[in-house]
Amino acid sequence: MQVLPPALTDLIDAFGALPGVGPRTAERYAYYLVRHNTDAPAKLISGLQDLRGGIGYCRKTFALISSDQELSDLYTDPRRDKTTIAVVAEPFDLVALEKTGQFHGTYHVLGGLVSPIDGVGPDQLHIAELVARIDDDDVKEIILATNASVEGESTALYIQQQIGDRDVKITRLARGLPIGVDLEYADQITLGRALEGRQTL
Amino acid sequence: MQVLPPALTDLIDAFGALPGVGPRTAERYAYYLVRHNTDAPAKLISGLQDLRGGIGYCRKTFALISSDQELSDLYTDPRRDKTTIAVVAEPFDLVALEKTGQFHGTYHVLGGLVSPIDGVGPDQLHIAELVARIDDDDVKEIILATNASVEGESTALYIQQQIGDRDVKITRLARGLPIGVDLEYADQITLGRALEGRQTL
Repeated sequence: MQVLPPALTDLIDAFGALPGVGPRTAERYAYYLVRHNTDAPAKLISGLQDLRGGIGYCRKTFALISSDQELSDLYTDPRRDKTTIAVVAEPFDLVALEKTGQFHGTYHVLGGLVSPIDGVGPDQLHIAELVARIDDDDVKEIILATNASVEGESTALYIQQQIGDRDVKITRLARGLPIGVDLEYADQITLGRALEGRQTL
Repeated sequence: MQVLPPALTDLIDAFGALPGVGPRTAERYAYYLVRHNTDAPAKLISGLQDLRGGIGYCRKTFALISSDQELSDLYTDPRRDKTTIAVVAEPFDLVALEKTGQFHGTYHVLGGLVSPIDGVGPDQLHIAELVARIDDDDVKEIILATNASVEGESTALYIQQQIGDRDVKITRLARGLPIGVDLEYADQITLGRALEGRQTL
Protein backbone atom coordinates (compact mmCIF):
# COMPACT_ATOMS: atom_id res chain seq x y z
CA MET A 1 0.00 0.00 0.00
CA GLN A 2 1.30 3.43 -0.95
CA VAL A 3 1.34 5.68 2.08
CA LEU A 4 3.19 8.43 0.17
CA PRO A 5 3.52 8.88 -3.61
CA PRO A 6 6.83 7.54 -5.00
CA ALA A 7 7.71 10.97 -6.46
CA LEU A 8 7.73 12.30 -2.92
CA THR A 9 9.62 9.42 -1.30
CA ASP A 10 12.29 9.71 -4.03
CA LEU A 11 12.74 13.39 -3.23
CA ILE A 12 12.86 12.65 0.51
CA ASP A 13 15.59 10.05 -0.14
CA ALA A 14 17.52 12.56 -2.27
CA PHE A 15 17.39 15.23 0.44
CA GLY A 16 18.46 12.56 2.95
CA ALA A 17 21.81 12.26 1.12
CA LEU A 18 22.78 15.79 2.19
CA PRO A 19 25.09 16.01 5.21
CA GLY A 20 23.29 16.11 8.55
CA VAL A 21 19.84 15.64 7.01
CA GLY A 22 17.86 12.88 8.70
CA PRO A 23 14.54 11.41 7.52
CA ARG A 24 12.44 13.97 9.42
CA THR A 25 14.32 16.96 8.04
CA ALA A 26 14.20 15.48 4.52
CA GLU A 27 10.40 15.03 4.88
CA ARG A 28 10.12 18.63 6.04
CA TYR A 29 12.06 19.98 3.03
CA ALA A 30 10.07 17.87 0.56
CA TYR A 31 6.71 18.70 2.08
CA TYR A 32 7.57 22.39 2.17
CA LEU A 33 8.16 22.28 -1.59
CA VAL A 34 4.88 20.37 -2.14
CA ARG A 35 2.91 22.75 0.04
CA HIS A 36 4.31 26.09 -1.03
CA ASN A 37 4.00 26.96 -4.64
CA THR A 38 7.25 28.90 -4.99
CA ASP A 39 10.06 28.99 -7.51
CA ALA A 40 12.31 27.18 -4.99
CA PRO A 41 12.22 23.80 -6.84
CA ALA A 42 13.06 25.51 -10.15
CA LYS A 43 15.92 27.44 -8.54
CA LEU A 44 17.26 24.27 -6.91
CA ILE A 45 17.08 22.40 -10.22
CA SER A 46 18.93 25.14 -12.10
CA GLY A 47 21.49 25.49 -9.31
CA LEU A 48 22.15 21.76 -9.27
CA GLN A 49 22.39 21.62 -13.06
CA ASP A 50 24.91 24.48 -13.12
CA LEU A 51 26.96 22.64 -10.52
CA ARG A 52 27.81 19.84 -12.93
CA GLY A 53 30.79 21.06 -14.87
CA GLY A 54 30.15 24.65 -13.84
CA ILE A 55 32.60 24.75 -10.96
CA GLY A 56 36.34 24.22 -10.94
CA TYR A 57 39.36 24.96 -8.84
CA CYS A 58 41.84 27.81 -9.37
CA ARG A 59 45.11 26.15 -10.40
CA LYS A 60 47.16 28.50 -8.23
CA THR A 61 45.07 28.97 -5.07
CA PHE A 62 42.66 25.99 -5.35
CA ALA A 63 39.80 28.33 -4.49
CA LEU A 64 36.45 27.49 -6.15
CA ILE A 65 35.94 29.27 -9.48
CA SER A 66 33.60 29.14 -12.45
CA SER A 67 34.87 26.50 -14.87
CA ASP A 68 35.25 29.15 -17.60
CA GLN A 69 37.98 30.77 -15.51
CA GLU A 70 41.52 29.50 -14.96
CA LEU A 71 42.49 31.53 -11.93
CA SER A 72 40.52 32.99 -9.05
CA ASP A 73 39.86 36.74 -8.99
CA LEU A 74 41.36 36.61 -5.51
CA TYR A 75 44.67 35.80 -7.22
CA THR A 76 44.52 37.79 -10.44
CA ASP A 77 43.10 41.05 -9.07
CA PRO A 78 45.95 43.62 -9.08
CA ARG A 79 44.83 44.94 -5.68
CA ARG A 80 45.71 41.60 -4.05
CA ASP A 81 49.20 41.32 -2.65
CA LYS A 82 50.63 38.08 -4.05
CA THR A 83 53.54 38.10 -1.59
CA THR A 84 51.24 37.34 1.36
CA ILE A 85 49.39 34.01 1.35
CA ALA A 86 46.75 32.91 3.85
CA VAL A 87 46.68 29.11 3.95
CA VAL A 88 43.23 27.66 4.68
CA ALA A 89 41.86 24.14 4.82
CA GLU A 90 38.62 24.48 2.84
CA PRO A 91 37.25 26.92 0.22
CA PHE A 92 34.67 28.34 2.60
CA ASP A 93 37.32 29.29 5.17
CA LEU A 94 38.44 31.88 2.66
CA VAL A 95 34.93 33.35 2.57
CA ALA A 96 35.11 33.82 6.35
CA LEU A 97 38.46 35.64 6.09
CA GLU A 98 37.19 37.81 3.19
CA LYS A 99 34.26 38.91 5.35
CA THR A 100 36.65 40.53 7.83
CA GLY A 101 37.69 42.94 5.04
CA GLN A 102 41.12 43.09 6.68
CA PHE A 103 43.12 40.77 4.44
CA HIS A 104 44.48 41.94 1.10
CA GLY A 105 46.86 39.13 0.22
CA THR A 106 45.98 35.95 -1.69
CA TYR A 107 44.89 32.53 -0.49
CA HIS A 108 45.95 28.93 -0.75
CA VAL A 109 43.32 26.26 -0.16
CA LEU A 110 44.81 22.99 1.08
CA GLY A 111 41.70 20.92 0.36
CA GLY A 112 41.56 19.49 3.87
CA LEU A 113 43.76 18.86 6.89
CA VAL A 114 46.17 16.05 7.69
CA SER A 115 44.02 13.49 9.53
CA PRO A 116 45.30 9.90 9.83
CA ILE A 117 41.92 8.79 11.26
CA ASP A 118 40.09 9.92 8.10
CA GLY A 119 42.92 8.56 5.92
CA VAL A 120 44.03 12.02 4.78
CA GLY A 121 47.82 12.22 4.41
CA PRO A 122 49.84 15.34 3.54
CA ASP A 123 50.26 14.09 -0.05
CA GLN A 124 46.54 14.53 -0.67
CA LEU A 125 46.71 18.22 0.22
CA HIS A 126 48.00 21.04 -2.00
CA ILE A 127 51.15 21.55 0.06
CA ALA A 128 53.75 21.04 -2.69
CA GLU A 129 51.89 23.65 -4.78
CA LEU A 130 52.08 26.07 -1.84
CA VAL A 131 55.85 25.60 -1.55
CA ALA A 132 56.18 26.15 -5.32
CA ARG A 133 54.26 29.44 -5.01
CA ILE A 134 56.81 30.75 -2.48
CA ASP A 135 59.48 30.76 -5.19
CA ASP A 136 57.15 31.69 -8.10
CA ASP A 137 55.56 34.72 -6.46
CA ASP A 138 58.46 35.81 -4.24
CA VAL A 139 56.26 35.29 -1.18
CA LYS A 140 57.22 37.20 1.96
CA GLU A 141 54.63 35.92 4.46
CA ILE A 142 52.66 32.72 4.86
CA ILE A 143 49.77 33.00 7.33
CA LEU A 144 48.76 29.51 8.47
CA ALA A 145 45.03 30.07 8.93
CA THR A 146 44.08 26.46 9.67
CA ASN A 147 41.57 25.49 12.35
CA ALA A 148 42.59 25.65 16.00
CA SER A 149 42.21 21.85 16.23
CA VAL A 150 44.69 18.97 16.51
CA GLU A 151 44.45 18.42 12.72
CA GLY A 152 44.85 22.14 12.05
CA GLU A 153 47.89 22.42 14.29
CA SER A 154 49.63 19.33 12.94
CA THR A 155 48.99 20.37 9.33
CA ALA A 156 50.48 23.79 10.14
CA LEU A 157 53.53 22.10 11.66
CA TYR A 158 53.96 19.88 8.61
CA ILE A 159 53.76 22.87 6.24
CA GLN A 160 56.34 24.70 8.36
CA GLN A 161 58.70 21.74 7.95
CA GLN A 162 58.12 21.61 4.19
CA ILE A 163 58.88 25.31 3.79
CA GLY A 164 62.15 24.61 5.60
CA ASP A 165 64.71 27.40 5.55
CA ARG A 166 63.21 29.38 2.66
CA ASP A 167 63.34 33.11 3.34
CA VAL A 168 59.66 33.58 4.22
CA LYS A 169 57.97 34.74 7.41
CA ILE A 170 55.56 32.10 8.75
CA THR A 171 52.77 33.28 11.03
CA ARG A 172 49.52 31.84 12.27
CA LEU A 173 46.24 33.30 13.48
CA ALA A 174 46.28 34.36 17.12
CA ARG A 175 44.64 32.05 19.61
CA GLY A 176 42.86 33.67 22.52
CA LEU A 177 39.53 34.72 23.95
CA PRO A 178 36.79 35.12 21.33
CA ILE A 179 35.28 38.62 21.42
CA GLY A 180 32.21 38.87 23.64
CA VAL A 181 32.92 35.73 25.66
CA ASP A 182 33.21 35.90 29.44
CA LEU A 183 36.45 34.68 30.96
CA GLU A 184 34.59 32.26 33.23
CA TYR A 185 33.03 30.49 30.23
CA ALA A 186 36.26 30.11 28.24
CA ASP A 187 37.66 26.57 28.15
CA GLN A 188 41.02 25.80 29.78
CA ILE A 189 42.97 25.31 26.56
CA THR A 190 41.77 28.59 25.01
CA LEU A 191 42.55 30.40 28.23
CA GLY A 192 46.00 28.77 28.37
CA ARG A 193 46.70 29.94 24.80
CA ALA A 194 45.42 33.43 25.62
CA LEU A 195 47.86 33.57 28.53
CA GLU A 196 50.78 32.34 26.42
CA GLY A 197 49.99 34.88 23.72
CA ARG A 198 49.41 37.83 26.06
CA GLN A 199 50.27 41.21 24.65
CA THR A 200 51.73 44.33 26.28
CA LEU A 201 49.42 47.33 26.37
CA MET B 1 35.76 40.48 -6.97
CA GLN B 2 34.30 36.95 -7.09
CA VAL B 3 34.94 35.16 -3.82
CA LEU B 4 32.76 32.22 -4.85
CA PRO B 5 31.64 31.21 -8.37
CA PRO B 6 28.08 32.40 -9.19
CA ALA B 7 26.95 28.81 -9.92
CA LEU B 8 27.73 28.01 -6.30
CA THR B 9 26.18 31.13 -4.75
CA ASP B 10 22.99 30.49 -6.77
CA LEU B 11 22.78 26.98 -5.35
CA ILE B 12 23.46 28.26 -1.82
CA ASP B 13 20.62 30.77 -2.24
CA ALA B 14 18.32 28.02 -3.51
CA PHE B 15 19.07 25.77 -0.53
CA GLY B 16 18.53 28.79 1.72
CA ALA B 17 14.87 28.88 0.65
CA LEU B 18 14.21 25.55 2.41
CA PRO B 19 12.61 25.81 5.87
CA GLY B 20 15.10 26.17 8.71
CA VAL B 21 18.13 26.35 6.40
CA GLY B 22 20.38 29.32 7.18
CA PRO B 23 23.34 30.54 5.11
CA ARG B 24 25.84 28.24 6.87
CA THR B 25 23.75 25.11 6.38
CA ALA B 26 23.09 26.08 2.75
CA GLU B 27 26.85 26.50 2.19
CA ARG B 28 27.45 23.12 3.77
CA TYR B 29 24.92 21.37 1.49
CA ALA B 30 26.29 23.06 -1.62
CA TYR B 31 29.92 22.41 -0.77
CA TYR B 32 29.16 18.78 0.04
CA LEU B 33 27.75 18.35 -3.47
CA VAL B 34 30.80 20.10 -4.99
CA ARG B 35 33.23 18.05 -2.96
CA HIS B 36 31.71 14.60 -3.21
CA ASN B 37 31.24 13.21 -6.65
CA THR B 38 28.02 11.30 -5.98
CA ASP B 39 24.71 10.88 -7.79
CA ALA B 40 23.04 13.06 -5.13
CA PRO B 41 22.67 16.13 -7.43
CA ALA B 42 21.16 13.97 -10.20
CA LYS B 43 18.74 12.34 -7.73
CA LEU B 44 17.74 15.73 -6.34
CA ILE B 45 17.18 17.10 -9.84
CA SER B 46 15.00 14.15 -10.86
CA GLY B 47 13.12 14.25 -7.55
CA LEU B 48 12.42 17.96 -7.91
CA GLN B 49 11.37 17.54 -11.54
CA ASP B 50 8.95 14.74 -10.63
CA LEU B 51 7.48 16.98 -7.96
CA ARG B 52 6.09 19.41 -10.49
CA GLY B 53 2.78 17.97 -11.54
CA GLY B 54 3.72 14.57 -10.13
CA ILE B 55 1.94 14.92 -6.83
CA GLY B 56 -1.70 15.52 -6.06
CA TYR B 57 -4.21 15.15 -3.29
CA CYS B 58 -6.69 12.29 -2.85
CA ARG B 59 -10.11 13.84 -3.39
CA LYS B 60 -11.62 11.85 -0.50
CA THR B 61 -8.89 11.80 2.15
CA PHE B 62 -6.65 14.68 0.93
CA ALA B 63 -3.64 12.46 1.49
CA LEU B 64 -0.75 12.99 -0.95
CA ILE B 65 -0.95 10.73 -4.01
CA SER B 66 0.70 10.39 -7.41
CA SER B 67 -1.08 12.68 -9.85
CA ASP B 68 -2.00 9.66 -12.02
CA GLN B 69 -4.21 8.38 -9.18
CA GLU B 70 -7.52 9.79 -8.09
CA LEU B 71 -7.81 8.24 -4.66
CA SER B 72 -5.23 7.18 -2.08
CA ASP B 73 -4.52 3.46 -1.63
CA LEU B 74 -5.25 4.12 2.03
CA TYR B 75 -8.86 4.73 0.99
CA THR B 76 -9.37 2.30 -1.87
CA ASP B 77 -7.66 -0.76 -0.38
CA PRO B 78 -10.39 -3.26 0.59
CA ARG B 79 -8.54 -4.08 3.82
CA ARG B 80 -9.07 -0.55 5.10
CA ASP B 81 -12.18 0.00 7.18
CA LYS B 82 -13.95 3.01 5.65
CA THR B 83 -16.25 3.38 8.65
CA THR B 84 -13.39 4.54 10.90
CA ILE B 85 -11.64 7.81 10.02
CA ALA B 86 -8.54 9.21 11.71
CA VAL B 87 -8.53 13.00 11.23
CA VAL B 88 -5.02 14.48 11.00
CA ALA B 89 -3.71 17.98 10.33
CA GLU B 90 -0.94 17.30 7.77
CA PRO B 91 -0.17 14.49 5.29
CA PHE B 92 2.91 13.36 7.22
CA ASP B 93 0.91 12.84 10.42
CA LEU B 94 -0.71 9.95 8.61
CA VAL B 95 2.73 8.42 7.98
CA ALA B 96 3.38 8.51 11.74
CA LEU B 97 0.08 6.72 12.47
CA GLU B 98 0.72 4.14 9.70
CA LYS B 99 4.07 3.30 11.31
CA THR B 100 2.29 2.09 14.46
CA GLY B 101 0.74 -0.68 12.34
CA GLN B 102 -2.27 -0.53 14.68
CA PHE B 103 -4.72 1.47 12.63
CA HIS B 104 -6.77 -0.15 9.88
CA GLY B 105 -9.31 2.56 9.12
CA THR B 106 -8.93 5.40 6.64
CA TYR B 107 -7.67 8.95 7.07
CA HIS B 108 -8.83 12.49 6.52
CA VAL B 109 -6.17 15.18 6.14
CA LEU B 110 -7.41 18.61 7.18
CA GLY B 111 -4.55 20.50 5.54
CA GLY B 112 -3.69 22.44 8.68
CA LEU B 113 -5.21 23.51 11.98
CA VAL B 114 -7.42 26.46 12.88
CA SER B 115 -4.96 29.20 13.82
CA PRO B 116 -6.18 32.82 13.87
CA ILE B 117 -2.59 34.07 14.38
CA ASP B 118 -1.48 32.46 11.11
CA GLY B 119 -4.71 33.55 9.40
CA VAL B 120 -6.01 29.98 9.04
CA GLY B 121 -9.77 29.79 9.53
CA PRO B 122 -11.90 26.61 9.56
CA ASP B 123 -13.10 27.35 6.00
CA GLN B 124 -9.59 26.77 4.65
CA LEU B 125 -9.53 23.24 6.08
CA HIS B 126 -11.21 20.15 4.61
CA ILE B 127 -13.83 19.99 7.36
CA ALA B 128 -16.97 20.14 5.18
CA GLU B 129 -15.57 17.20 3.14
CA LEU B 130 -15.11 15.25 6.38
CA VAL B 131 -18.72 15.82 7.40
CA ALA B 132 -19.83 14.73 3.90
CA ARG B 133 -17.85 11.49 4.27
CA ILE B 134 -19.76 10.62 7.45
CA ASP B 135 -22.96 10.23 5.40
CA ASP B 136 -21.30 8.86 2.22
CA ASP B 137 -19.35 6.07 3.90
CA ASP B 138 -21.67 5.35 6.83
CA VAL B 139 -18.88 6.27 9.23
CA LYS B 140 -19.10 4.84 12.76
CA GLU B 141 -16.07 6.44 14.43
CA ILE B 142 -14.10 9.64 13.93
CA ILE B 143 -10.74 9.68 15.74
CA LEU B 144 -9.58 13.28 16.12
CA ALA B 145 -5.81 12.73 15.83
CA THR B 146 -4.80 16.39 15.84
CA ASN B 147 -1.78 17.69 17.74
CA ALA B 148 -1.97 18.08 21.51
CA SER B 149 -1.62 21.86 21.10
CA VAL B 150 -4.03 24.78 21.49
CA GLU B 151 -4.63 24.80 17.71
CA GLY B 152 -5.09 21.02 17.68
CA GLU B 153 -7.59 21.10 20.53
CA SER B 154 -9.61 24.01 19.16
CA THR B 155 -9.76 22.44 15.69
CA ALA B 156 -10.99 19.20 17.29
CA LEU B 157 -13.65 21.14 19.18
CA TYR B 158 -14.78 22.91 15.99
CA ILE B 159 -15.03 19.61 14.09
CA GLN B 160 -17.07 18.14 16.95
CA GLN B 161 -19.53 21.05 16.64
CA GLN B 162 -19.78 20.62 12.86
CA ILE B 163 -20.53 16.92 13.17
CA GLY B 164 -23.31 17.92 15.54
CA ASP B 165 -25.81 15.19 16.43
CA ARG B 166 -24.95 12.80 13.59
CA ASP B 167 -24.84 9.20 14.83
CA VAL B 168 -21.06 8.80 14.94
CA LYS B 169 -18.70 8.10 17.82
CA ILE B 170 -16.11 10.87 18.23
CA THR B 171 -12.87 9.98 20.00
CA ARG B 172 -9.47 11.54 20.29
CA LEU B 173 -5.98 10.21 20.95
CA ALA B 174 -5.23 9.65 24.65
CA ARG B 175 -3.15 12.28 26.40
CA GLY B 176 -0.76 11.03 29.05
CA LEU B 177 2.81 10.15 29.86
CA PRO B 178 4.94 9.34 26.81
CA ILE B 179 6.49 5.87 27.06
CA GLY B 180 9.96 5.89 28.60
CA VAL B 181 9.62 9.28 30.26
CA ASP B 182 10.15 9.66 34.00
CA LEU B 183 7.29 11.14 35.98
CA GLU B 184 9.54 13.82 37.43
CA TYR B 185 10.41 15.12 33.95
CA ALA B 186 6.83 15.26 32.67
CA ASP B 187 5.39 18.76 32.39
CA GLN B 188 2.42 19.79 34.56
CA ILE B 189 -0.16 19.87 31.78
CA THR B 190 0.75 16.39 30.50
CA LEU B 191 0.68 15.05 34.04
CA GLY B 192 -2.68 16.74 34.65
CA ARG B 193 -4.12 15.08 31.54
CA ALA B 194 -2.62 11.73 32.55
CA LEU B 195 -4.39 12.04 35.91
CA GLU B 196 -7.72 13.02 34.31
CA GLY B 197 -7.52 10.08 31.91
CA ARG B 198 -6.40 7.49 34.48
CA GLN B 199 -7.50 3.94 33.75
CA THR B 200 -8.55 1.11 36.07
CA LEU B 201 -6.21 -1.88 36.08
